Amino acid sequence: MAKMKALAKTRPAPGAEIIEVDIPQPGPGELLVKNKAVSICGTDVHIYEWDNWAQSRIKTPMIFGHEFAGEVMEIGPNTQTHVKVGDIVSGETHIYCGHCYLCKMGNEHICKDVKLRGIDCTGCFAEYLTMPANTAWVNPKSLAIEHMSAQEPMGNAVHTVFEGGDVKGQSVAIFGCGPIGACAAAICKASGATQIFAMDISDYRLNLAKSMGATTVINSKQKDPVKEIMAATNNQGVDVFLEMSGAAPIYEQGFKILRPGGRAGLLGVAKDKVPIDITNGIVFKQARVFGINGRRIWGTWETAAKLLAEGKVDMGKLVTHKFPMSKFAEAFEIMKSGNSGKIVMYPDK
Amino acid sequence: MAKMKALAKTRPAPGAEIIEVDIPQPGPGELLVKNKAVSICGTDVHIYEWDNWAQSRIKTPMIFGHEFAGEVMEIGPNTQTHVKVGDIVSGETHIYCGHCYLCKMGNEHICKDVKLRGIDCTGCFAEYLTMPANTAWVNPKSLAIEHMSAQEPMGNAVHTVFEGGDVKGQSVAIFGCGPIGACAAAICKASGATQIFAMDISDYRLNLAKSMGATTVINSKQKDPVKEIMAATNNQGVDVFLEMSGAAPIYEQGFKILRPGGRAGLLGVAKDKVPIDITNGIVFKQARVFGINGRRIWGTWETAAKLLAEGKVDMGKLVTHKFPMSKFAEAFEIMKSGNSGKIVMYPDK
Amino acid sequence: MAKMKALAKTRPAPGAEIIEVDIPQPGPGELLVKNKAVSICGTDVHIYEWDNWAQSRIKTPMIFGHEFAGEVMEIGPNTQTHVKVGDIVSGETHIYCGHCYLCKMGNEHICKDVKLRGIDCTGCFAEYLTMPANTAWVNPKSLAIEHMSAQEPMGNAVHTVFEGGDVKGQSVAIFGCGPIGACAAAICKASGATQIFAMDISDYRLNLAKSMGATTVINSKQKDPVKEIMAATNNQGVDVFLEMSGAAPIYEQGFKILRPGGRAGLLGVAKDKVPIDITNGIVFKQARVFGINGRRIWGTWETAAKLLAEGKVDMGKLVTHKFPMSKFAEAFEIMKSGNSGKIVMYPDK
Amino acid sequence: MAKMKALAKTRPAPGAEIIEVDIPQPGPGELLVKNKAVSICGTDVHIYEWDNWAQSRIKTPMIFGHEFAGEVMEIGPNTQTHVKVGDIVSGETHIYCGHCYLCKMGNEHICKDVKLRGIDCTGCFAEYLTMPANTAWVNPKSLAIEHMSAQEPMGNAVHTVFEGGDVKGQSVAIFGCGPIGACAAAICKASGATQIFAMDISDYRLNLAKSMGATTVINSKQKDPVKEIMAATNNQGVDVFLEMSGAAPIYEQGFKILRPGGRAGLLGVAKDKVPIDITNGIVFKQARVFGINGRRIWGTWETAAKLLAEGKVDMGKLVTHKFPMSKFAEAFEIMKSGNSGKIVMYPDK
Repeated sequence: MAKMKALAKTRPAPGAEIIEVDIPQPGPGELLVKNKAVSICGTDVHIYEWDNWAQSRIKTPMIFGHEFAGEVMEIGPNTQTHVKVGDIVSGETHIYCGHCYLCKMGNEHICKDVKLRGIDCTGCFAEYLTMPANTAWVNPKSLAIEHMSAQEPMGNAVHTVFEGGDVKGQSVAIFGCGPIGACAAAICKASGATQIFAMDISDYRLNLAKSMGATTVINSKQKDPVKEIMAATNNQGVDVFLEMSGAAPIYEQGFKILRPGGRAGLLGVAKDKVPIDITNGIVFKQARVFGINGRRIWGTWETAAKLLAEGKVDMGKLVTHKFPMSKFAEAFEIMKSGNSGKIVMYPDK
Repeated sequence: MAKMKALAKTRPAPGAEIIEVDIPQPGPGELLVKNKAVSICGTDVHIYEWDNWAQSRIKTPMIFGHEFAGEVMEIGPNTQTHVKVGDIVSGETHIYCGHCYLCKMGNEHICKDVKLRGIDCTGCFAEYLTMPANTAWVNPKSLAIEHMSAQEPMGNAVHTVFEGGDVKGQSVAIFGCGPIGACAAAICKASGATQIFAMDISDYRLNLAKSMGATTVINSKQKDPVKEIMAATNNQGVDVFLEMSGAAPIYEQGFKILRPGGRAGLLGVAKDKVPIDITNGIVFKQARVFGINGRRIWGTWETAAKLLAEGKVDMGKLVTHKFPMSKFAEAFEIMKSGNSGKIVMYPDK
Repeated sequence: MAKMKALAKTRPAPGAEIIEVDIPQPGPGELLVKNKAVSICGTDVHIYEWDNWAQSRIKTPMIFGHEFAGEVMEIGPNTQTHVKVGDIVSGETHIYCGHCYLCKMGNEHICKDVKLRGIDCTGCFAEYLTMPANTAWVNPKSLAIEHMSAQEPMGNAVHTVFEGGDVKGQSVAIFGCGPIGACAAAICKASGATQIFAMDISDYRLNLAKSMGATTVINSKQKDPVKEIMAATNNQGVDVFLEMSGAAPIYEQGFKILRPGGRAGLLGVAKDKVPIDITNGIVFKQARVFGINGRRIWGTWETAAKLLAEGKVDMGKLVTHKFPMSKFAEAFEIMKSGNSGKIVMYPDK
Repeated sequence: MAKMKALAKTRPAPGAEIIEVDIPQPGPGELLVKNKAVSICGTDVHIYEWDNWAQSRIKTPMIFGHEFAGEVMEIGPNTQTHVKVGDIVSGETHIYCGHCYLCKMGNEHICKDVKLRGIDCTGCFAEYLTMPANTAWVNPKSLAIEHMSAQEPMGNAVHTVFEGGDVKGQSVAIFGCGPIGACAAAICKASGATQIFAMDISDYRLNLAKSMGATTVINSKQKDPVKEIMAATNNQGVDVFLEMSGAAPIYEQGFKILRPGGRAGLLGVAKDKVPIDITNGIVFKQARVFGINGRRIWGTWETAAKLLAEGKVDMGKLVTHKFPMSKFAEAFEIMKSGNSGKIVMYPDK
């Protein structure tokens, strides 16, 4: 049986290693994909570093990773699908049952039995991957393979920016300028937002957000975002508050700078309960707050793909580093430094 | 100059007293109304008891009260209005400027310079009242005067139930069964909701909610609402969570029993910051959360009036006590006991 | 191979006949269902009568019919489904591919390659039926089998009533009181509508609509719906206009009695182009108009099922006749007379 | 009493003339405005030419015109307003009562008693104008006076583009490339639309639309828009169809090239009833159709102002001609030729 290289957590401890395993076989309803590019998410760093969350959630040994683009090599038996051998696909991370109440109501991304690729089951940091055909997104071949891989996190940004409203003629405050936050700035810019404030504590990431579309960047270590934003909005506050970090102090800042009647999109994953001033921050303000999980399947992907195809979001700026997968240690070190946008790896190198 | 009786906070201390003052004169843009019925809100009890919030907000001496219905006796000079002498009007409590950004965008209820009647300015616990004509709601004469007065709090319920969605074919959990919560149960029932859970710690109020439309009532002192609701919904949780109490523990319960993709309406006023499990309660669940303040002007009133006119909400059950205003002390004691629905007073008696 | 009875169009001419054919075998992705009850749609009458539309669309020989409820006897090979042998299922008529743009965006009911059961492929007027598992709706066993079958047309009503809005506190005009129109009246009633006008030219059907929830019925042959409705709404018109007939004159009436800013739901299938006063009926009125096709999959079914389960729509009134399938000729004659609600047939009798 | 020049229809016949009349005095609730720039709408051309519509609607003598920007000179007695002397204002054409059902529900633009400035009452083609203070829009002083005047028709475009949806990542077909259509192209471009098709029979106007944002322009005299658009969308059709002409053949084209599930915005004013293929163009397609009248007060103005302030819509391209009002005859001739964008006149010259 043919073998392949994969990047795996082989034991419950920090780090990861390249292993050699059998190339998997697609079962009914599945595709076999040869990965051309994979990219690293913040979640992968948690797994790599083996923090508390990873220890409680991940079962080793496991190939991890969930952002990828690759070529369909084979289609499993009795598989009804629109995907064809030779298609270049990306993948939705949320693997869904398709028939629970939530799936039937168009909420497949929060399926009752959802499994996350590379977290709850085998991931994509490998030369080959089998995947349910109904989680495949077929890319136009004109797109760069690295950008195809980065569509998944771009999808998080699209989902957060547009859930419950749009941004035309609106002011937006984005807290957290990792790749998703930087993408959000670009998406807002492309969709008619006016003031786009971006906050972070890393100048590298603030520069990234600025280059992609933020109109004002604020280093929260150096300046108080609340003061700055209120001053820049005639003390009205912003129309839209996007939380893309999960850091506890941001919620207080965000609900302060949100104007009455405004909209909040919460994507970040806070580690603990956060004390919220519900009365002044939400109730009296008549705020609308949207929790965001993953991407709408497939509405979010459609919007992301269209914005990409038209060049409205410049992925070339977002992808800042490229490595052969064999140099994964270097890639993860850069990710940990915060001095990067999206980092892509080539699994066959 | 003619005199009238009024119920006023005459000094910064618990209690209130009946005083005699001049009948006010309507200025430009104003109406003079002879109150036929007024009703007591929980906020009035805070003012009466002179709690911390009242001490910080209310300036004595002041006539308080904001729920009323009365007859228009006179229209101020140069007043452009649809209201006519002889009309029987209720009043929107949120007095708005009509031209700030929020007013112009149809959010008059959260006007930048909003003033609340009976809190920030003279209230309605009096034989006569002057009011801006643009806060008057003209009632059909077929309605009982007591029910007209209670439309204002019913409006809070309408606003909370329908903001961001509707309830047809949906399960709803209402926390807090004061008059607003009990009204919410009736409104849900009339609008196609299926399971309607109502929670409180007062059996009196649970009975009120049940009589008005709740399908299941749970005394939170005796049973755990989380266990009960999850069991009754096949462990799915409810479609809609309505917070109408402001008690801190409810938020944790509510975001637990809300199903993924569900909707929360937050009307209650929590005294302090509340620790919220944003990650599991909102983000991963893709919850939609709506802060609710007052009533939409006039969309909420239209819906309330129509539900009332058709007998879809039985106000006869909600109004449990009626007093001459001279017996206000007795009325407030009953309010404080929790053993009441809406209490109406007649200012001319 | 075992045989079954089926009601089929055997040749391109009016009528139909009972034939004996092989019981079908479920392929991959399919279920075999033993039909317990089927019901007759207006479309089936067109096919039976072999009108122009039927001649252009239907290829004989074909078993027709698309409303049914039955027991799952067998599941095809390699079928991933939540359905189990022994489940009692109804069926969505719109058979969808699941992966075209429209399916991916949650619009499976208007799938690019949609096929309608009993029109474009084999129907349900037979003892057994094979169906794609992803078009099966599993019923609670507490429901009467005849009501399960009638859920499909009830779904058309749910879809039309709620597409683009709801009806709480609103006035509604329903044109066409066949089973779908009568159901719409019941759904509006259960969901907080106030005035519910129902129009038809058959007194039988007007009575049906009235018994199910219409507050005013108007025989359009005897009275002018425009005059009647305008008089009954203080010349304002109704909030919602539902077209459930397809008769050309209704569109003019409906857009006249729709209030400015109102909503129209168009379900009826007009035979030809209809002259519309777009300027006064839609543009100046700022009307919102929603074309309705089939049912949202599965949002509409969920709502319908919940309204049924709670007894909010009384299907007992809607199903007016029951026949063994052998007496199909009698059943179709009654359908053609207009003096019926929903007619159910038992395929095994 | 001081006099001013005005451009008026002095008799029921084609043409208009400059007259001298008293400067009007603002009454209660009114402003006196000194017009700095006015602009010509297609409606003004109908009035100028005295076509059938004008003959039936306009009562001479009357000063016409409704697009303007000017300085507030005086505020009428007892006027509660946010507007100050010295403010530079534009005006909403739809003069509304503020208290009918439609006004109360946030639909002031279709007020039961709406009067259109320059059509139902005195217009703005004059050195001075009195106007209800509640129809004034205060401009930022950074904006060019000509662009302030053109905000009103830009508002029609904003309203049509965004009513019932947005355009991010969507394809749009705009029929009619007068100033409103050309603006719509710019607004779509600024708000994330992908393909933007613009149709007209004037090459001048197609060039205007192209320069402002259309990605493809089609001269409907030379090529069939249906064929062209279907070919350019892989036979899917567009997501959004905007009708901005009122020409009868467009409706058929538009509902053909609209994709299933798509959205139509109808702004154009068709002279007669139009035969519509409701069944295939709306019902089976599950199309959503929005009639558009004027501008939402003030939501539309807010969006327009923000897009303008940010330079997202380049009004410099839209305003193609400027004249002293004394040369009105020349201005109207150019308007009639179709070879213009927006034409501005200076009333004091």
